[in-house]
Parts: sequence; structure tokens; C-alpha cells
Amino acid sequence: MNTYTVSQLLAKDQFGLEIEIKGWVRTFRANRFIALNDGSTINNIQCVVDFENTSEETLKRITTGAAVHIKGELVESQGKGQKVEVAVTSIEILGDSDPETYPIQPKKHSFEFLRENAHLRTRTNTFSAVMRLRSSLSFAIHKYFNENGFYYMHTPIITGSDAEGAGEMFRVTNLDAENPPLTEDGKVDFKEDFFGNETNLTVSGQLEAETYAMSLGKVYTFGPTFRAENSNTSRHLSEFWMIEPEVAFMDLAGNMDLAEDFMKSVLSYILENNREDLEFLEKRLLDEEKTKPQAERSEMSLIEKLKFVIDNNFKRVSYTEAIDILKNSKPNKKKKFNYIIKEWGADLQSEHERFLVEKHFKCPVILFDYPANIKAFYMRLNEDGRTVRAMDILFPGIGEMVGGSQREERLEVLKEKMAALDIPEEELWWYLDLRKYGTAVHSGFGLGFERLVMFATGMTNIRDVIPYPRTPQNAEF
Amino acid sequence: MNTYTVSQLLAKDQFGLEIEIKGWVRTFRANRFIALNDGSTINNIQCVVDFENTSEETLKRITTGAAVHIKGELVESQGKGQKVEVAVTSIEILGDSDPETYPIQPKKHSFEFLRENAHLRTRTNTFSAVMRLRSSLSFAIHKYFNENGFYYMHTPIITGSDAEGAGEMFRVTNLDAENPPLTEDGKVDFKEDFFGNETNLTVSGQLEAETYAMSLGKVYTFGPTFRAENSNTSRHLSEFWMIEPEVAFMDLAGNMDLAEDFMKSVLSYILENNREDLEFLEKRLLDEEKTKPQAERSEMSLIEKLKFVIDNNFKRVSYTEAIDILKNSKPNKKKKFNYIIKEWGADLQSEHERFLVEKHFKCPVILFDYPANIKAFYMRLNEDGRTVRAMDILFPGIGEMVGGSQREERLEVLKEKMAALDIPEEELWWYLDLRKYGTAVHSGFGLGFERLVMFATGMTNIRDVIPYPRTPQNAEF
Repeated sequence: MNTYTVSQLLAKDQFGLEIEIKGWVRTFRANRFIALNDGSTINNIQCVVDFENTSEETLKRITTGAAVHIKGELVESQGKGQKVEVAVTSIEILGDSDPETYPIQPKKHSFEFLRENAHLRTRTNTFSAVMRLRSSLSFAIHKYFNENGFYYMHTPIITGSDAEGAGEMFRVTNLDAENPPLTEDGKVDFKEDFFGNETNLTVSGQLEAETYAMSLGKVYTFGPTFRAENSNTSRHLSEFWMIEPEVAFMDLAGNMDLAEDFMKSVLSYILENNREDLEFLEKRLLDEEKTKPQAERSEMSLIEKLKFVIDNNFKRVSYTEAIDILKNSKPNKKKKFNYIIKEWGADLQSEHERFLVEKHFKCPVILFDYPANIKAFYMRLNEDGRTVRAMDILFPGIGEMVGGSQREERLEVLKEKMAALDIPEEELWWYLDLRKYGTAVHSGFGLGFERLVMFATGMTNIRDVIPYPRTPQNAEF
Repeated sequence: MNTYTVSQLLAKDQFGLEIEIKGWVRTFRANRFIALNDGSTINNIQCVVDFENTSEETLKRITTGAAVHIKGELVESQGKGQKVEVAVTSIEILGDSDPETYPIQPKKHSFEFLRENAHLRTRTNTFSAVMRLRSSLSFAIHKYFNENGFYYMHTPIITGSDAEGAGEMFRVTNLDAENPPLTEDGKVDFKEDFFGNETNLTVSGQLEAETYAMSLGKVYTFGPTFRAENSNTSRHLSEFWMIEPEVAFMDLAGNMDLAEDFMKSVLSYILENNREDLEFLEKRLLDEEKTKPQAERSEMSLIEKLKFVIDNNFKRVSYTEAIDILKNSKPNKKKKFNYIIKEWGADLQSEHERFLVEKHFKCPVILFDYPANIKAFYMRLNEDGRTVRAMDILFPGIGEMVGGSQREERLEVLKEKMAALDIPEEELWWYLDLRKYGTAVHSGFGLGFERLVMFATGMTNIRDVIPYPRTPQNAEF
């Protein structure tokens, strides 16, 4: 007798097959019908217990959350909604689940409650679907890069540099917190710390990725990054995963091509491989939105949004053009935007990005050639002297999804930029070396993985798309 | 005119094809022959410069490390060692490389020197091969788990728990190092820290992975882990990557099956996909070993060692049997071991593990059922009350490669173990919940990724198989 997963059994039509299955009871009704799940699919298999020949004691122990080992026969289902079910011949309770205390009751729980029980929340349909999609998206990313000649690179998590400039950092230390060693002038003596100097958690692997691109050609990172920012919002995490490809000899146009092809590829992968989870989440989102006022509802369903990205060419628009469009737009003139666009140089907010994508162009948008002074030091300065070869990709519902640039490959220009921002050359000597020895045009982009998972699942709080979210005041589990 | 990679061109035989290629000069000899590399393969393509029609100034700038853009024609090579070469029609220097100062000279550099220039070391054959293999192994791992119904899970890096017990931890903080806030009794007030309590860098994702296995069925992690141990050896890193699968309803025998199948699968993948890099590294290792005394040389070449693992069944031996074998072995009796095995209960050292694999069984070995008191608290206690369902997989040359166990699924037994080790239940309440609600047999293992890369590349210092190693006193780059 073979052991199968729920997913395998639901795909079978060999009626009469003797099978074994192990899983957890989702519901048990009429002393007869077990809805059994084992994580292999969003769907449960119905297991029909012969209650007349099952002891009262066993029947009592078939409760929501209990782990069971079932032997039985695969039969055609008489009920609707399923082709097959299991006629149970024996059932063993592996692990009980006290219905009085089990937190995951067979009812709707608030996401807030489930965050407090994050160790159990993948026992619900919503979170199991989200985490299967998260896994699938991860694989799609590795597959895409592998098929396109990229090497996966693990950039360091602990870094001695604080010049990356992407945000506030966490310190990593094993000095005594109460009595740290001090230097003669009374400051903490980081020379005594584990790494012999002050170290932090990385905010980006880009600079290190550039070193590998300039030898291996095409590389990407996919790893955790950190921000010690006190932002308690539904869009910020202190610890999140980022994907950062970096390619030698590629200019900004090539970077746009790559990002567009990449996004379409990974979203197509989940449409092909995770249809049932997506359909479940699409329905969930529709139900949730029904409780909202009409104006706040999405114009597109979840799967429509994915197809919107896959089927449309991304519109490429310079920052300068975008500012003109925004300045002359209705919401700007009628002061409907929270931030009114007054002139060239303004930093765009999510409301502007969404306007461009959802109202004006009605397709994903790539904005490029941003003002130099609102972008990072390593971006390639254009000949106009005031803009850099940066790009942001804007998606419906979510705004910025990807940020990238062609990198400044000219040693002297880069040094000037660093000097203007007080970034010491000694700290990035190795980064400068790339411009000293065999420099070349190169480009890359960064993608916050959780942003992508939010987009792909329709979840609206970033804490609900990562297993154990880290946020200010919270590192539970 | 299309742009190709070196790898693509070397596979072509369309002589006369007009091509473009961009890459870095490895060597330039006789004012004529450029060996060009772009990272796409260990091999260079020979580009033949028509020096009579090339300016003296350009010829001077074709130096090791320079980035160039070549246009030319693919022709049959007259030289040996290559089928095709490029007859250069035009060459543009994209980035110079001053031969007086460029650290990577066309000669053999010590690995120590290259570690100090880790940002440039992938410009050498050895390190480009190692890092391509590292990437390939990563992909093989994701592919294996994806094909076998596992979900990839990102366990948290920052953890509020210090109960994992796998080693010394790094503290993560953003309190003022000089003037941390203090409680009334003069201790550092971690309530004021970013996460509202003391937090550390994770040493393992296993406990969190168990939570997902107990709902999604089969999961794995592949992420960075940390040890704040002051070990300055060729086998220790402060930051390294670990793979940890965890499976519900799987016992220790199933765990062994999984680990053996997994190891064979990922090593087969690189044999199929990275042949040229492996052959290069095999030759490198042979050359290196020629400088050593006979006794210290490997009995097997690099590829032979990979095949040794792939082609042999892993021998399963209980700890108790292994102790008997070791006690009665020649090196034990003749006191050749540094640590003499005297009695049951001894912790095995690398020398013993290697003896079992290389001398006694001559195949990879899985040791199981270890004494409870030398293993972690979460391992399933056997009925004998003195051993636990732990396993270690031993490989030739390297000793322990995998460590795993069936997990203690019985609430009361687990609580007793924790109490005996002073692990507070409050800290692992969520871990205990797994035993309260729908508990079941489950198992998993951990694999240090850099160990695997060392085994697969023949590199003998762990600092040479990760891009930017973090070790005591060193977090450079």
C-alpha cells in the first residue's frame, strides 16, 4: 500500500486503489467527513469515515488540527466539488489537537491574530497559498537567471562598510553591552570587537555584485537585507529579501529589457504552476474588497493584474516627460494629490507613480533619467550633467517595483561624486579598483522580493508575505 | 553583427561569421594573440590582432585586465588547443589596466594574496571556476527540492531567541554603543532596543522550518547563518550558508534516504553541467598535491571523489557499531589517532570519521543513533533511553558533511529535555505548540553549503569558496 500526498490523490482516477495518506484534519463534520490537508495543495481531500465501525473514542479525537494516518480506498466522490475521495478503512490519530485550546479554529481569523500565531498560520488556506507562491516565485527567479547565463552570488550579510547609503543600519557586535572596551578618549573601541572594526548588517549587495559582474559577466544576488528604520507601516520590514542582478557591458536600455523580460517570466511561471493558489487568493481579495467603498477597490482582479504585466509592453518614459504629464494632470491641477508636483526635480510619490500606470498610460511604466541629486552616488551621470541613468519600474496597485541604473564606470566622475557626498575613498577602495582596471559600462537593478510576493498574492500587508516578519518592537519566533 | 559570449563562440563552427565580443584581456603575446575571457566559461577565446594595421597606441593598451570590444570574423584556428578563433577587424579599449599596478598579473598568485584582493580574484581561472560551481550547486539544490515537492522557506536572520544552542551568537542592535539606556539596576535596557528585546543573528533556521513542515509538509531553507566563535581555521567562517530541509511524517530512515538522494543528485548535476570547470580544478589540485609528501596526497582525484559519492551506496552504521570498529582499529591500538577512542560515549573527531569512510568502509557512511548527551535537545529519544535518532553523513577527505535527526515529537519528553538544559519554555512556546496541536513524526538535516563547495571544488580553505569571507578580525569588502 503506497503513501500519497493529497495533491497526488486528487489527480488520480484509479478507483479501488488502496492508499495511505497522512495529514491534518481541517474540518470533521457529521461524524463522517474529514477534510484532510497535508500542505501539498490548497485543496483538501475528503476522507469518509465509516463511523459505525469506528470507536467513539477515536471519533472524538478527529478534531481540527489533529494529525492522522489514514488507510483506505480511492473512490469516486458522490459529493460535489471533487472527483475523488477516500473511503477510510482505518484511521490512526498521530497527534491530537484540543479543540478547546487550538488557536486555528475552522472559522475566519483576522490577519492580526494570525500574525501573533505565525507559527500556525500556514495551517490556513490563505497563508499556505501565499507561502507556496513565495516558494514558487523564488524558484522562478533562480530558474530565469540560470537559463540566461547568470551566476548566483552570495554577497556578505555582515559588512564593515556603511557607505552603501541605502538606509539606517543595524550594528553587529559581540562586545559586552554593559561594559564595552573604551579607547583612551572614552569612545567604544571597536578594534576590540569581533571583526576588529564596527560592522553592520548589509542594506544591499550591489557593490559586491558589481565586483563579480566585472569578471564573471552576469551575476545576481538573492539574499536578506536590512533597514533599521522606525517605520511601522504595512509596506516596511526591518529584514527583507532582495534580488539584485548586475551585468557587465550592459547599458540602461539593456537593463530595461532585462528587467521587463525577468518580471514577465517569473509572473508567467506562477500563472502556469500555481493556478489553484492564485484562484483562491483572487477570490479572497474580491471578498475582502467587497467590504470596502467602491472607490478603494481594485479595477483589476489578481490574475488580471498579473496578465496586465505579462501582456503589456512596459512604457518607457523619461522623468522629465513624466513631470510634464503629472504637472498637467487633473489630480495635480485640482490638488487631489497629497504632494502637488510643482517643478522638475520633485521626488515622485506612490500616488504619482500609480497615476501614471493606472490612469495615464494604463500599462507598466519604466521611468528613467532621474535628477542626479535624488539618486545614489554610483549612478551614471548623463551628458546633460543634471540627470543620471536611473530607472524605476512602476506597477499597478503597488507603485515602484524595481529600481536600477547604469553604474558610473568613469573613475574621475565617481570620485567627484563620492567627494561631494563625503564618502571616503579608503572605504570603497575595492569599488574604485573596478574603475581603475578594465572598467566598462555595466548596469543592474534591485527588486524587493516581498513587494513582488505582495503583488503576486494580492496581500496588502508586507508582514503577511514573509514567514516571520521583523519590524520595530517585534522579533518574535 | 551579433554580440556573443566566449562560451557561445567556442561552440560555433560557422567560419566566416562576423561577430562582436566584449571581455577582458587575460594575456596578450607577440603583439598579436589576445586570450579573451568574459566569465561565461573557464576557456578563453583567442583573438588575433592584425598588428600591422593597428595603431601602436592601441597595441600598448592591450594589457592584462583591460576591457575590450572586439569586432571580427570567426575563423578556424591554426593553433592547437582550440577549434576556432577570432580574426580581429577592430578593437576598442573600453577600460585600461595599468600593467604596472594591476594586482592580477599573468602568473600564479598565492591564495592568501588573492584573499586580500577578493574583489579581483574571480578574474583568475581558479576562482572563476570555484564561483561558477558554487552557483551551479546552488541551482542544483533549488532544482532538487522543487522537483521533489519541497517549498523554499526564508527563515528569519535576526532572532530574539538564543535557545537554538548551536553556538555563540552575534548581537544585533541599534542602541547607542557608548551610552546605552540602562534599567534601574544598571543593566542595558534592551526594551529600548529596536526590537524591544535582545536580538541575535540566527545560528540555524531549523526550529522555524519545523513550524512550516508541520503545515506545508516538506520545506527547506537555504540562507545565511552565523557563529561568533573565535576560530581562525581553514574550516570555520563566522558567516556561512546552510541548507536545512524538514519533512513531516518522515522518520530517521526516510531522512537518510532523502539526504543520500539529495547529495547524489546535486553532485551529478555539476558533473553534467560544469565539466570544464571541474577538470580545471582537478588538474589544479593534482598540481598542488605534487608539492606535498606522498602520505598527505588524496587517494582520489576530484572527479573520482564526486563519483565515489554518486556511485556508492552510503553505508548505514550505528554509532555503537562505529565505536566498536574504531576501538579495535589499528590506528587506535597503535595510538595513531590524536584522540584515542576508549569507550562508548566518545564524541567522534574528523580523523575517526575519515578512517571509517576512507579506510574501513571505503564508501560514504551514515552514522546514526548517537548518545543523547552529545547531541541537541530536540532530537528524538530512542526507546533505550540513552541514544537519539541523530545521523551524521561522512564524506571522504572532509568528514562530516550532513547532520540531521528525527525530531522529538512528544510534548512531555521534549519538555523534560528542555528543563534538564535550562531552556525556558516561555522562549520556545511556539515550538512546543507544534507538539500540542497535531504533532507527528518529522525529521530533517542541515548541510553547510561551503563544506559542499569545498568538497565539489577541491579547495582546502573555506575562505576560498565564498565571495567575501567573514572571519575573526576580518569583514573587509
